[in-house]
Amino acid sequence: MKFAVLGTGSVGCGIADKLIQLGHTVMMGSRTADNAKALAWANAAGSNASVGTFATAAAFGEIIFNCTKGLVSLEALRLAGAENMKGKTILDTTNALDFSTGTAVIGVSNADSLGEQIQREFPEVKVVKTLNTVNGKVMVNPNLIAGGDHNIFVSGNHADAKEQAKQLLTSFGWMSDMIIDLGDITTARGAEQYVSLWIRLAGTLGTSLIQMKVIK
Amino acid sequence: MKFAVLGTGSVGCGIADKLIQLGHTVMMGSRTADNAKALAWANAAGSNASVGTFATAAAFGEIIFNCTKGLVSLEALRLAGAENMKGKTILDTTNALDFSTGTAVIGVSNADSLGEQIQREFPEVKVVKTLNTVNGKVMVNPNLIAGGDHNIFVSGNHADAKEQAKQLLTSFGWMSDMIIDLGDITTARGAEQYVSLWIRLAGTLGTSLIQMKVIK
Repeated sequence: MKFAVLGTGSVGCGIADKLIQLGHTVMMGSRTADNAKALAWANAAGSNASVGTFATAAAFGEIIFNCTKGLVSLEALRLAGAENMKGKTILDTTNALDFSTGTAVIGVSNADSLGEQIQREFPEVKVVKTLNTVNGKVMVNPNLIAGGDHNIFVSGNHADAKEQAKQLLTSFGWMSDMIIDLGDITTARGAEQYVSLWIRLAGTLGTSLIQMKVIK
Repeated sequence: MKFAVLGTGSVGCGIADKLIQLGHTVMMGSRTADNAKALAWANAAGSNASVGTFATAAAFGEIIFNCTKGLVSLEALRLAGAENMKGKTILDTTNALDFSTGTAVIGVSNADSLGEQIQREFPEVKVVKTLNTVNGKVMVNPNLIAGGDHNIFVSGNHADAKEQAKQLLTSFGWMSDMIIDLGDITTARGAEQYVSLWIRLAGTLGTSLIQMKVIK
């Protein structure tokens, strides 16, 4: 399958590598077609890897991973272009974290979330919020923590897109019974606001290899 | 020990009952000294139970449990009176949940929390945010979920007050190695914002007998 991965940071590179390993074809998108980090990734990733602008990558991908920085995600998606994303599933892994005060603060909160903002601004795409609650390494290798015995969430308005997301998560190594469908895209608030706790836990426990397991 | 429990709802009554069971003396505080719910609680709870205004109760208690509704907690604590709470530990169990839109919304978020608001407004009390991440029954009986195999948090600026809180939590049935000290009172943001996820999980899973366990 053809994927766009928007963003060249550790999350973008980690997901793009995983997709290549799984046999998919990936174009990594960034502001410019000659982004050095994207080119370095593609050179290392082999013949199924390519680079382009946000718009070129979005047009290329049948499914789009949003791995941009949360505070600039809407701007990046505007550059990707609504027409290039129309009807497609966007897997939104981002957190609108504001580090300007020195302490990470959830920049979109209360009665809104970044997932909802993206869905509102691009009504013809199918946004699925997922993977934002774990670190980049764990996203594509849940077994790094306790053999995968912890939960991951999906939120979105489109059942078919959430089903695609679940299949992808399973291919990444997530056990299907550990994937919790929280509900529509407004439930992204929960997944995003939880990150405020995750960050403090990571600091207190001295590791980012943590995740929650829902206990009943 | 003498406790004030501010608030007459299910959380206040549950904590007050537990404290009585543990041999403590409890005054339940509310806006008026003749609150019907407080009187009903005291009549059932026996000779160690009494009722009073927020101010009378706060003056009575050596330790104060804030079990008021989050959106009116600051107002309730103003009625309790800074002079009656001076130097005391306040265990703050509240969430500033706004249900006015039909969906529960965290009313204080981003770079603030209700725990911080209380600590700022009453600098001479020792606020410990705790217990706000579970339902009222689980607060005083963690074994209701998976034999207590899940986490609870404390946040606060005062080490002695957090130690009091941990001892109380242990007496409530929380296993000491399941109590996580998140750090200073700003970490209450994490515990409070997490509730946004907890509420959606409870809805999706059809039970409020859930809690998270941190997996490493």
